[in-house]
Amino acid sequence: VDFQEIIAAKRDGREHSLSDLEILCKGAADGSIPDYQLAAWLMAAYLHPLNATETADLTRAMAESGERLDLTGLPKPWVDKHSTGGVGDKTSLVLLPLLAACGLTVVKMSGRGLGITGGTVDKLSSVPGFRTDLSPEEMKAQAAKIGLALTGQTPNLAPADKTLYALRDVTATVGSMPLIVSSILSKKVAGGAETIVLDVKCGSGAFMKVREEATKLADGLRSTGKALGLNVRLAMTDMDQPLGSAVGNALEVQEALDVLQGKPLNSCAERFRELCLSLAALTLEASGLCGTHELARAKAEDALASGKAESKRAEWFEAQGATSLDLPKAPQRLVVKAEGSGFVHRVDAEIVGHTVIDLGGGRKQKTDTIDLSVGIEILCLVGDQVEQGQNVATVHAHEEASAQQAAERLLQAVVVKPEPAAPNDLILDLR
Amino acid sequence: VDFQEIIAAKRDGREHSLSDLEILCKGAADGSIPDYQLAAWLMAAYLHPLNATETADLTRAMAESGERLDLTGLPKPWVDKHSTGGVGDKTSLVLLPLLAACGLTVVKMSGRGLGITGGTVDKLSSVPGFRTDLSPEEMKAQAAKIGLALTGQTPNLAPADKTLYALRDVTATVGSMPLIVSSILSKKVAGGAETIVLDVKCGSGAFMKVREEATKLADGLRSTGKALGLNVRLAMTDMDQPLGSAVGNALEVQEALDVLQGKPLNSCAERFRELCLSLAALTLEASGLCGTHELARAKAEDALASGKAESKRAEWFEAQGATSLDLPKAPQRLVVKAEGSGFVHRVDAEIVGHTVIDLGGGRKQKTDTIDLSVGIEILCLVGDQVEQGQNVATVHAHEEASAQQAAERLLQAVVVKPEPAAPNDLILDLR
Repeated sequence: VDFQEIIAAKRDGREHSLSDLEILCKGAADGSIPDYQLAAWLMAAYLHPLNATETADLTRAMAESGERLDLTGLPKPWVDKHSTGGVGDKTSLVLLPLLAACGLTVVKMSGRGLGITGGTVDKLSSVPGFRTDLSPEEMKAQAAKIGLALTGQTPNLAPADKTLYALRDVTATVGSMPLIVSSILSKKVAGGAETIVLDVKCGSGAFMKVREEATKLADGLRSTGKALGLNVRLAMTDMDQPLGSAVGNALEVQEALDVLQGKPLNSCAERFRELCLSLAALTLEASGLCGTHELARAKAEDALASGKAESKRAEWFEAQGATSLDLPKAPQRLVVKAEGSGFVHRVDAEIVGHTVIDLGGGRKQKTDTIDLSVGIEILCLVGDQVEQGQNVATVHAHEEASAQQAAERLLQAVVVKPEPAAPNDLILDLR
Repeated sequence: VDFQEIIAAKRDGREHSLSDLEILCKGAADGSIPDYQLAAWLMAAYLHPLNATETADLTRAMAESGERLDLTGLPKPWVDKHSTGGVGDKTSLVLLPLLAACGLTVVKMSGRGLGITGGTVDKLSSVPGFRTDLSPEEMKAQAAKIGLALTGQTPNLAPADKTLYALRDVTATVGSMPLIVSSILSKKVAGGAETIVLDVKCGSGAFMKVREEATKLADGLRSTGKALGLNVRLAMTDMDQPLGSAVGNALEVQEALDVLQGKPLNSCAERFRELCLSLAALTLEASGLCGTHELARAKAEDALASGKAESKRAEWFEAQGATSLDLPKAPQRLVVKAEGSGFVHRVDAEIVGHTVIDLGGGRKQKTDTIDLSVGIEILCLVGDQVEQGQNVATVHAHEEASAQQAAERLLQAVVVKPEPAAPNDLILDLR
């Protein structure tokens, strides 16, 4: 079959067979279909969106376009977790060892950050010695030994998705829901886990800014996951204000350590801890390890409070080569003070995210290098009452000038008004 | 402006400004917009077709993306002619010298053939010494001297069209009417003429197989040409059976010479001669040189019958380097005889075209080399009465085997039935 005929079929709104989509993915993976033909197909698929069957077939074909992690032999249940990305989202750093401490086998591929959403791989690279380049064999051996392994994305995992994702990014075809769904799930299918917990972020600091769009994505992920035989559970959670207190790579690792080690937490970090427990309970129940949500929640709380999760974290870090917890620290600190008294109506996650990028802590382009030490600690939540002059954030910067710029920008992110404000719901949906 | 925003606008069905289309054409011409982005735009423009204003703007922007022929100083009227392409269509070889003999300044860029439709440049390359690589300066100098110049497409003429055309060919976006219209007219605008005669071919041997599609194309060419200030005239003519008797490069040049030199013609060649006269009359009237169609027709007939057109042809060939009229001849000839008696119901131009390609006389791929000597002479018209054993075609081939194959295939193209058949109309529309 000539790929032009496949382009023409989608152009005319006809349905693709699994075989069509396998041809597409094979050609995208091995480079035999040129980018311009893939780009034409992507636009056709944007304007004639793939139906449920096609979306599942595309996901399968992308997963099968390269290597797959075979977890056979490892103790079940096999769990993977994915977040659609947000500002300050360091959930994996707590959730993965917590779940492994409860007896699940947790195997996760993580990405690097781009734009305002950070990446777990970047965060962990602020830990001295920590390796994020495990091979599939190393992943499996480590998961067999300690129940937990994490790596950066290997080039051979769902290579078709890699090609199509890069093209979508430059051809105005990113926003197609079926293409987003299959991109996310193809990597999960290739990763080999059976129970998948997906955290769909919603708000100014997320890809999906409004509830309606996030719900559509969640529905697509749920139904496609089901069609693929995955045990998918979904949380939809707030990303209108940053998650937790810390935004910035080393700062976020420190916040995760504080949660695991039972350190005293401010209200922002408490909110982050609560999300970790909610997602852990969801996962423990979904995996079949706990019969009810109440039991699952209790197990998660115990693993965190007893220090079992922190012990697993230490085991994990050691297994992946970490030599210390001496995280890089930025030389400049600047406290941001509220300009007036009142109630916090908004802590704009998008502005906070861009401010961290400008400090050097995130990437505008894929090839940018990042400063792992810089970032922002947010010290107030929507709904909090604040007094004029109260510390609402701390900037960690490399230079005084960039700290000053960041502080000014943060005063636009934190909106204080005289009238009271209701707190943001943390969890918008969970099932 | 980021080109992605322009892609997104068309993806969402929004109207482009002239400036958007200038950015597109500049980027397509200088290579600064990558093929995959152009391909995504082409698919968006296929599915949200350009409106009349956008089509005219795209045509203008493509024409302005490279060099333009400036005819200033040459005697008016300036005339150009274009056919959408068909099997046996060697009209330009007669029409151009005929019009120049009548006093028009005729300047034409011609293409090479691809698929079943031949190209004037290929036909003329069967004439020993004939140059089809005149520079813009040589074109102008020659047109000033003898009123007629023809060249192959220069790389710098409407380069944006060249890029987009090549991409459309491989991204299933060829069939968009506004894109076809702007591609055709952009080269005419860049060619500098003011009166443009367009011959839209309709039938099995043409790009537009059915009347409805051909009418849509003709309407688009007419209205866009008008919007661009061109004096456009359109003929829609039959391409269900081959035009004239000869199909194949050297054979077609010989047929054109026969018409110009007043040689005895078979009924197929007579039909070709009639099309030349009709198009000449249309052009002479359109250019303002003749006040009525009757006067124009008489002038065209006189130019042909008197030998003025042939003298101009000789002048033209000499100016472009032709050294003789010793055309290449194929070593094998095979006569095709009717298998039964009756009336000719069909001489399928598409089959005839493919048969010539298989003989080596046309290209399947752009890079194929062609045998200029091979081809077919068709010796009957739809409506003709034929006897069993009567010659209906002659194959000119390089080898006996390929001649035999071609002869067999031709018996499928020439459909003879007992009941009478009406001849095909030659001219479907002319205005």
